[in-house]
Amino acid sequence: MSVESPLFDRLVVVGPGLIGSSVLRRARQTGTIARRLIAVDIDPIFRARVEELGIADEVTGDLRSAVADADCVMLCVPVCAIGPVAAEALSAMKPGAILTDTGSTKVSVIAAVEPALRPDISFIPAHPMAGTEYSGPDAGFATLFEDRWCLLTPLPGTPEADVEKITSLWERCGARTRLMTPEHHDRVCAIVSHLPHLLAFTICGTADDLADETRSEVLDFAASGFRDFTRIASSDPIMWRDIFLSNREALLEMLARFTEDAQAMARAIRWGDADYIVDRIERGRTIRRSLIENKQA
Amino acid sequence: MSVESPLFDRLVVVGPGLIGSSVLRRARQTGTIARRLIAVDIDPIFRARVEELGIADEVTGDLRSAVADADCVMLCVPVCAIGPVAAEALSAMKPGAILTDTGSTKVSVIAAVEPALRPDISFIPAHPMAGTEYSGPDAGFATLFEDRWCLLTPLPGTPEADVEKITSLWERCGARTRLMTPEHHDRVCAIVSHLPHLLAFTICGTADDLADETRSEVLDFAASGFRDFTRIASSDPIMWRDIFLSNREALLEMLARFTEDAQAMARAIRWGDADYIVDRIERGRTIRRSLIENKQA
Repeated sequence: MSVESPLFDRLVVVGPGLIGSSVLRRARQTGTIARRLIAVDIDPIFRARVEELGIADEVTGDLRSAVADADCVMLCVPVCAIGPVAAEALSAMKPGAILTDTGSTKVSVIAAVEPALRPDISFIPAHPMAGTEYSGPDAGFATLFEDRWCLLTPLPGTPEADVEKITSLWERCGARTRLMTPEHHDRVCAIVSHLPHLLAFTICGTADDLADETRSEVLDFAASGFRDFTRIASSDPIMWRDIFLSNREALLEMLARFTEDAQAMARAIRWGDADYIVDRIERGRTIRRSLIENKQA
Repeated sequence: MSVESPLFDRLVVVGPGLIGSSVLRRARQTGTIARRLIAVDIDPIFRARVEELGIADEVTGDLRSAVADADCVMLCVPVCAIGPVAAEALSAMKPGAILTDTGSTKVSVIAAVEPALRPDISFIPAHPMAGTEYSGPDAGFATLFEDRWCLLTPLPGTPEADVEKITSLWERCGARTRLMTPEHHDRVCAIVSHLPHLLAFTICGTADDLADETRSEVLDFAASGFRDFTRIASSDPIMWRDIFLSNREALLEMLARFTEDAQAMARAIRWGDADYIVDRIERGRTIRRSLIENKQA
């Protein structure tokens, strides 16, 4: 398929927030993703803003009419909303169209979508690993996915041509893509993203619970360590609540492993086991070095 | 005291690494800290580098001769070395001189120095809360302390004029200063700096222990959450080992509080307590907002 010819005639983006509006911007900029861009949102304020931004050819609140003629429907709604929104979209989509999503977790998203799936429509779950601490249509930008990963977790039996279309879509957004199982995806994301966020949220709460005098000083003296944590912790609470709840199993397993390791570190500190402490710290440096070599740092 | 007149005749900086060499650079640049700058290091390679950098008037490995005529001796050595180095310095210093340090923990540093203290020399513990992930004489720079805090934990009965001199020294380095008890200092630093580092080191180790397949993908897909953690975790292992061991009590208490909070979060995730999760996440945002208002972010 030539890079110049658009992948789809009509692409519907449901939920043009940070991720969805970035896809629209990119599609508009390159012209190689779809001939016509449709944005769907239940919130009239968001719809008005998307119209003002001029990043879609049509903006509507009517999901069923919008998706009826679509070649591709991309759900960029919060993970807990993907199931119900997918069911409504699937009931109106035309045979041969593709349904995809951008949720941060995959096992529970697939389980939520599965009951409404139709044999004549491919559902191709995807997760672009990109984001900022901001949200909404104004937060998006066309280069958000540049050099970031987009992980795809297609179901067994999905036509390869459809998987390739969604892969191309993300590559035309600038992303690198990889296929994996939903279970593997959820474990990888639990350790690289969800657990770090859980720890960052938690330490901010722990600090906030300290006696008043210490608390004001936490703010005054926040060293670089804590500052980095609060940057992570400033992300959207509802989005993260949904991610935590929908990746429950993998996240709790990673937290359990982490807690064992933290307790082992505590024990080493209590008993003065200097070698153990240095060994664990060295591992951080090794990972950091590999990250830099992987040009991801 | 006029800002133009130097605070000391002879300032000896023991351990011209990141912190020590930054003090030397600042003192050389402003001319208002000391008339003569002396750098002491046991490592001949470091001494040669400090001479090449030209940031001290004298560079020597002989601590006792260097401190004999000093008005002020500042120990910028690792926290676990402060006790023995202080004892050697104190045995050679002249009456009326001031001893100070820059260690990241204070209760155990004071306990280590106390046996060698002399009534005719003021020991004024200090902790400039500044740093980078780099170390050594080349890592320092004159503006390292600009707008950062330096916490002082003077012992009861220390002459006020001497405390004021060390306070002025740090203010002339660009820092804001505050006095507090050593115990309070250690608790504040445990939550704002030491615990965040412990968590960052630990999560890198937890990731590194995953099965080989997942581990390679952790590197590939490191989202922003994990990337920030590895930046923290790339700090010097020996320095952090020493900090953890010398702030054992406060750090273990903060880790225990944090672990309780993380377990409560895990329980909320397991049982789907959405309100609890959102409440804890909101706290992070509140702290973040206060941080920005405090112009520390």
